[in-house]
Amino acid sequence: MKIFSYFNKILNDPTYSTKLLVICSISSGGLLAYADSNTNGAKSISVPCQNYETTQKKKVVVLGTGWASTSFLKDLDISSYDVQVVSPRNYFAFTPLLPSVTCGTVEARSIVEPVRNIIKKRNGEIKFWEAECLKIDPDNKKVLCRSNIDENLAGNNEFSLDFDYLVIAIGAQVNTFDTPGVLEHCLFLKEVEDAQRIRRSVIDCFEKAVLPELTEEERKTNLHFVIVGGGPTGVEFAAELHDFIHEDLVKVYPSVKDLVSITLIQSGDHILNTFDERISSFAEQKFQRDGIEVLTGHRVMSVSQRMINMKTKSKGEDVSIPHGMVVWSTGVGTRPVVKDFMEQIGQGNRRVLATDEWLKVKGLEDIYALGDCATVDQKKIMEDISAIFKAADKDNSGTLTIEEFIDVVEDVVIRYPQVELHLKSKHLFEVTDLLKDVDGSDREEIDIEGFKLALSHVDKQTKSLPATAQVAVQQGVYLSSCFNKREKCKSEPEGPRKFRSGGRHDFRPFRYRHLGQFAPLGGEQAAAELPGDWVSMGRSTQWLWYSIYASKQVSWRTRFLVIGDWGRRFIFGRDSSRI
Amino acid sequence: MKIFSYFNKILNDPTYSTKLLVICSISSGGLLAYADSNTNGAKSISVPCQNYETTQKKKVVVLGTGWASTSFLKDLDISSYDVQVVSPRNYFAFTPLLPSVTCGTVEARSIVEPVRNIIKKRNGEIKFWEAECLKIDPDNKKVLCRSNIDENLAGNNEFSLDFDYLVIAIGAQVNTFDTPGVLEHCLFLKEVEDAQRIRRSVIDCFEKAVLPELTEEERKTNLHFVIVGGGPTGVEFAAELHDFIHEDLVKVYPSVKDLVSITLIQSGDHILNTFDERISSFAEQKFQRDGIEVLTGHRVMSVSQRMINMKTKSKGEDVSIPHGMVVWSTGVGTRPVVKDFMEQIGQGNRRVLATDEWLKVKGLEDIYALGDCATVDQKKIMEDISAIFKAADKDNSGTLTIEEFIDVVEDVVIRYPQVELHLKSKHLFEVTDLLKDVDGSDREEIDIEGFKLALSHVDKQTKSLPATAQVAVQQGVYLSSCFNKREKCKSEPEGPRKFRSGGRHDFRPFRYRHLGQFAPLGGEQAAAELPGDWVSMGRSTQWLWYSIYASKQVSWRTRFLVIGDWGRRFIFGRDSSRI
Repeated sequence: MKIFSYFNKILNDPTYSTKLLVICSISSGGLLAYADSNTNGAKSISVPCQNYETTQKKKVVVLGTGWASTSFLKDLDISSYDVQVVSPRNYFAFTPLLPSVTCGTVEARSIVEPVRNIIKKRNGEIKFWEAECLKIDPDNKKVLCRSNIDENLAGNNEFSLDFDYLVIAIGAQVNTFDTPGVLEHCLFLKEVEDAQRIRRSVIDCFEKAVLPELTEEERKTNLHFVIVGGGPTGVEFAAELHDFIHEDLVKVYPSVKDLVSITLIQSGDHILNTFDERISSFAEQKFQRDGIEVLTGHRVMSVSQRMINMKTKSKGEDVSIPHGMVVWSTGVGTRPVVKDFMEQIGQGNRRVLATDEWLKVKGLEDIYALGDCATVDQKKIMEDISAIFKAADKDNSGTLTIEEFIDVVEDVVIRYPQVELHLKSKHLFEVTDLLKDVDGSDREEIDIEGFKLALSHVDKQTKSLPATAQVAVQQGVYLSSCFNKREKCKSEPEGPRKFRSGGRHDFRPFRYRHLGQFAPLGGEQAAAELPGDWVSMGRSTQWLWYSIYASKQVSWRTRFLVIGDWGRRFIFGRDSSRI
Repeated sequence: MKIFSYFNKILNDPTYSTKLLVICSISSGGLLAYADSNTNGAKSISVPCQNYETTQKKKVVVLGTGWASTSFLKDLDISSYDVQVVSPRNYFAFTPLLPSVTCGTVEARSIVEPVRNIIKKRNGEIKFWEAECLKIDPDNKKVLCRSNIDENLAGNNEFSLDFDYLVIAIGAQVNTFDTPGVLEHCLFLKEVEDAQRIRRSVIDCFEKAVLPELTEEERKTNLHFVIVGGGPTGVEFAAELHDFIHEDLVKVYPSVKDLVSITLIQSGDHILNTFDERISSFAEQKFQRDGIEVLTGHRVMSVSQRMINMKTKSKGEDVSIPHGMVVWSTGVGTRPVVKDFMEQIGQGNRRVLATDEWLKVKGLEDIYALGDCATVDQKKIMEDISAIFKAADKDNSGTLTIEEFIDVVEDVVIRYPQVELHLKSKHLFEVTDLLKDVDGSDREEIDIEGFKLALSHVDKQTKSLPATAQVAVQQGVYLSSCFNKREKCKSEPEGPRKFRSGGRHDFRPFRYRHLGQFAPLGGEQAAAELPGDWVSMGRSTQWLWYSIYASKQVSWRTRFLVIGDWGRRFIFGRDSSRI
């Protein structure tokens, strides 16, 4: 946990010099826990291989080849497990660069790495099957898979795999919120193929708009690009598209350059609303200067072949605008196979598959879920408050002294991370400050009612994790470290106390550390939210973005290609061939 | 014509030192007339712009964006013409590198250049429409076009264009020779999309072959790659595929590496039969060493989902072999729109559209056809022999003296290039040697019968031009030079005498100069046929191939990308992601 405690330490030190240190460690190939091949953090976690079961290795089936899955596989000790990976995609894609692929700033091929190359480094002990998981059978510990490869080829396409442990990391699909016409008339931005499709569509719109015999109105319609969703992906795509058009396409389609327009539709009041307010308004101002129209407070009601129909949130007015192309980039939805699995295990009425804090699917042993396909259901402290009090009250006096509280506090903070967030939000520096009375003066003892009252607001700080690569990677790293020390921790548990049942948890629960996020805004400008509420915007941030994204590539090949692509773009611009 | 006469001169000098000179000029960015942006030959041909029709520019419509079309556009004097280009492909593709794209040695994007970039250099005076030509109407001088862009976009997809001159350069399509099952079950290698499809299919075959629950036989079937056609494309693809599999794929699919097989099917007795015999047997031996099975003398009768059925030519036996993938690479066929046009102009019973030696479609004024979609119908000298004799016999004596013959000989050689080929094949150095009698002694005079006898074998040397980029480029360069000096040559014709009708042709007829051809054979070896019957084989030839193909790129961007791709392949190998 060296890297975690390192970050922990600097995060709790609010001095400027420390922030500089963060920036330095980030730009010098930092954000160590964020990705990838040289995840030192993970390496310090994994213990030397101690194979307790030499006779029969446990079978691990991993579904998916995204961020969570590959980061799990990267450090898994394969001497203890027989690992099989199943995914319809035989490559890992560096998804944060997808918006760049839509406009050819970076080529699709430059952001993908074959899974077999990644697992080859693990001495060929990991098997990969290019197939889709059709059904998860938790009772019989089987998954049914079907390959989507050309039916013409010889051999059966369906097969099933047995598992001792299953890791579900198949990500999410687009969420249309059942808006009519979206599936038929919108483009999406989740997979590499989506990005390639968008690129061809942009060129199509221009090629169609310049054809002879079109009216000015028709040309304008075809050159109206609409993006639905003002999150980081939508905003970055809008910015990329603006650059593509104004840096490259206007030169090759000069006759229609004044007819182009870009509109970004956001149902909330601001774009980038998960970011710091300063970034949000910086982005809005930049877009205004660039001529990208931002329609906030507009909810899309339906999309048809040539029109997008909205309602304004404030006045409920209907607004319709003609479009040439719509990119739908809002939220994530659950895949059918996960939906089916949720129904089998009694989670049918939930929106997303729930896991406990150890990433184990709720109600099941041996099945884990990471990344966008699942959410960590953080236990509320108020549910366990009596058990905590009882465990802490060693002398059964009915009251807790400060010493008794201090005795359990470490386990409480580990088990309920919302306690720490609560302290931060209240600007308290010591956990024992929680027990102070209303006036802020120390109390000698506290009874159960006072204890409940003191912690009553803590659970408000419980946050669900965002659907980002950063979360998925940290979960993968965490889970592989648990797998690697499974036998060791059975005998020497390292987790917090079980306040209800007694004993200790085998492992510490998963803890997400937010290392910041970027929003490239086009024109060689970016905004970044960095640890410690530090915000950075402008050209230098774009260079920080370049250096971090280059350092985070999964292989030297993709690093070489991505940097080459950036260089190519600087020198020759982006290509407008329709392939 | 400087460059032509330069080559002419060195070709007629059989000393070794001259051949070295040829090699040097080739490797230093040579084969000047072969391609491209710095076609000095063409520049020396075009005369300064003399715009005789300032009031109304003539409308030129060019169909196609391949080699012929782009080389025509590159040097066309747009101050005299109003040019519109129509093609369903908004880019030019460097087709000789298509086999490299099939295996990812070079990326698809690296061999394409947007047409608009090419024509942009011509001051934006050339218009481009991304559309397919549906119908050519020679009577009303119109072409009907339809855009294939997404129907969802606003505006009509059909439009028609008027022309004063039409240049048809839309290339050819694959020729299945009506073999059953080919269209349904084979892959082709004519367009960039075809190459990308092959790449995905190769990966599919491997991914399917490694799936669990397949029999050894099924795995072998899926990994049997068949190429039909032993021409340069088929052979180069077989070589690329072999390298891809043995340099890259066996490392990522180690479990099936011994099950892979490649078969090349050729109906003739040898592969590369348009090349020198030495190259043909060198290739066959190399393929044998590499384990690529070459089935010569096999005619494909039909292709089904998993089998390819053949007949041996010698014994007529039926042979069937199971396959995972078949690439069909034999011959070229006529596109429907050209077929329809041929029927309109009375060429319906011909296989290919015929033009005269000035690339003008036979029987029409103002419509030209270049490249793979047409063939030059060389006039036979024996058809005109009486007219030539009459024109040469100035004193109407009924006999020709040597002097009278010398007087017309230059025009004869220009008008009937087969005369020069005949001389070469007979090892004669002077045209007047033709008139020698049977014993080889000079004759003072010759009568019409003797004249006919002397030239009777000349027409046997008439050859149809191969369907190569080299021919297309030279035709494009030639035609643009004719367009550029159209007005000037009307008053000062530079062509040969019209022996039948008197007067002179405006221009010299098109004359193809074969500058050699390459056959890359894999494993960093290539074979090349160079001017002057010089043959070069092995590693050094592969490097010659690299340097020439790099120098021949249409833009610095593609040159940079192609060289980058080669470097990337050397360092990191080829990518096996299925995108």
